[in-house]
Amino acid sequence: MFKQVAVVGATGAVGRIMLRLLAERKLPVEQYRFLSSARSAGQPLEFQGQTYRLEELTEKSFAGCDLVIASTPDDVAAKYLPAAVAAGATVIDESGYFRMKPDIPLVIPEVNPQAALIDRGIISSPNCSTTQMVVALKPLHDAAGLKRVIVSSYQAVSGAGLQGTTDLIEGTKASLAGTDYRYSTFAHPIAFNLIPQIGSFKDEGYTSEELKMVYETRKIMGLPDLPVTATCVRVPVANCHSETIVVETERPLSVAEARRVLGAFPGIVVVDDPAQGRYPLPSDCTGRDEVFVGRIRRDLSSPQGLAFWCVSDNLRKGAATNAVQIAELLAAHRFGYRR
Amino acid sequence: MFKQVAVVGATGAVGRIMLRLLAERKLPVEQYRFLSSARSAGQPLEFQGQTYRLEELTEKSFAGCDLVIASTPDDVAAKYLPAAVAAGATVIDESGYFRMKPDIPLVIPEVNPQAALIDRGIISSPNCSTTQMVVALKPLHDAAGLKRVIVSSYQAVSGAGLQGTTDLIEGTKASLAGTDYRYSTFAHPIAFNLIPQIGSFKDEGYTSEELKMVYETRKIMGLPDLPVTATCVRVPVANCHSETIVVETERPLSVAEARRVLGAFPGIVVVDDPAQGRYPLPSDCTGRDEVFVGRIRRDLSSPQGLAFWCVSDNLRKGAATNAVQIAELLAAHRFGYRR
Repeated sequence: MFKQVAVVGATGAVGRIMLRLLAERKLPVEQYRFLSSARSAGQPLEFQGQTYRLEELTEKSFAGCDLVIASTPDDVAAKYLPAAVAAGATVIDESGYFRMKPDIPLVIPEVNPQAALIDRGIISSPNCSTTQMVVALKPLHDAAGLKRVIVSSYQAVSGAGLQGTTDLIEGTKASLAGTDYRYSTFAHPIAFNLIPQIGSFKDEGYTSEELKMVYETRKIMGLPDLPVTATCVRVPVANCHSETIVVETERPLSVAEARRVLGAFPGIVVVDDPAQGRYPLPSDCTGRDEVFVGRIRRDLSSPQGLAFWCVSDNLRKGAATNAVQIAELLAAHRFGYRR
Repeated sequence: MFKQVAVVGATGAVGRIMLRLLAERKLPVEQYRFLSSARSAGQPLEFQGQTYRLEELTEKSFAGCDLVIASTPDDVAAKYLPAAVAAGATVIDESGYFRMKPDIPLVIPEVNPQAALIDRGIISSPNCSTTQMVVALKPLHDAAGLKRVIVSSYQAVSGAGLQGTTDLIEGTKASLAGTDYRYSTFAHPIAFNLIPQIGSFKDEGYTSEELKMVYETRKIMGLPDLPVTATCVRVPVANCHSETIVVETERPLSVAEARRVLGAFPGIVVVDDPAQGRYPLPSDCTGRDEVFVGRIRRDLSSPQGLAFWCVSDNLRKGAATNAVQIAELLAAHRFGYRR
């Protein structure tokens, strides 16, 4: 088992789910430590029936750690995680900072598990909206070869951290009451509204979130030239990101065959019974670890196109679950762990 | 001016806006009448400072009418509007019933005004989500020829009628309070949630709303083979439908040129300044008559593709405004009216 695992950022939106998952999935760990900013250091943290103390994250925090799981902003990851590697740890990083660096593996265990099998260094876990899409794309690519991907996202406020959820709830209450609310996470009101911007604007009018969906997808799938375009939109949904995805494939793929390969792929649940009004809903997928796919149908605009709807819990498979699955992969590789 | 105009369905979600618009835009009308179901008949209705009585809609209601503007469910339109035509009226119908019939014009005044210039009969106004998209597609088609359209919608609850709005507000209050709410318009909870179904399921796993976006678009644009695919999603937004639209064009069209032709087209307002965080928001577009376009950029997945974001008030340009504009077209044609 892992001797000493440090969890960095355990009090954030993803960190809280991480704690729940580590307990649920019983990752084989002798000793846990929990690292946080100086502001939170010293506070108690309950985990698996024990009370821990949050320790201040410094460059010297990692002595003795064989595994670090970090959910922090990019700048914190950049500053501290190299010290963890220098101390001999393997680091599973949820931030965006290292993801596109050529020598850093970017891993979804169902898609490219072999990339995680390093002995030391940083393994990045992808962006939430990317992860769920790539899980769904992989079996379609294996079956028929992907030629083009067009995605529009419907992203929940929990992706903007705990304050994103507070903003939605308090902003909605204020809107219903006819009073004002000052949003701290969003540049525009999100209550009963949409914001077609997630992250900051980068090249050619695309946002950082949209470019993550392009570049991370290519890297994880090992398809550096895959044509992908994305529009990312924040919606007043509490939790779970949803996506409409249209793909073109190299070879024809029937709807029945697509449904079959999606349903057979690990980590995917197909919910697709229009006659019964059954398709994935954010409200049904929250708290679940899988990627849910429905509305699978022929793309009416292209002879080799398919369209579908994809929902997943952005804090779970989009973040914490994927990171824990990477840890489980490492455990399997290093000491034959089987969940 | 029109001698006698009958407004059918004035108490519904669209009808209320219709009354406001008829007053705002001062359609030249000598006498108005307001027709409703037997249930509402006899009730008073305030309009332009006068009190009218709602009259019961029957097949004999239309004697003396030269124009009828109807916002009713499909079955009501099917039953009563032919009687209006038989009585000699021109009918502007907002329902879906007649839209795809080959001899019925389907009109967006900015796009195909010539189709409205009939002396008698029914003129259909398109589906809300179709109208705003086609207004945006038309200048792109004129400039470069449309080859393919892929749209994902983010549709407000006001499109489901007054009860849709009640469902969102009461469902949201219940969700915040942790109590139950029985939705009457939606098959699933819409508070803080998404529903990837609008209308009923038809052929090949597409919903009626999605197929309207395919078939009505082709008819209005006179492009019977235009490849179009759509995914329509209900979102917990009060008013204004939003759409992500990806098009491929026959000839290359730069982003700058697309922005220019969109901005020059009547009825379109381009709001597209990412550096300042400016793009169309439902909250800004509600109560407006135009179609708002932003996030105009190159489609990263196709050499001749463009992607953009389109928002419009679904009760206004998506319904009432378009119908009143058709009436204004008729007024211009018949008696030289200029607004």
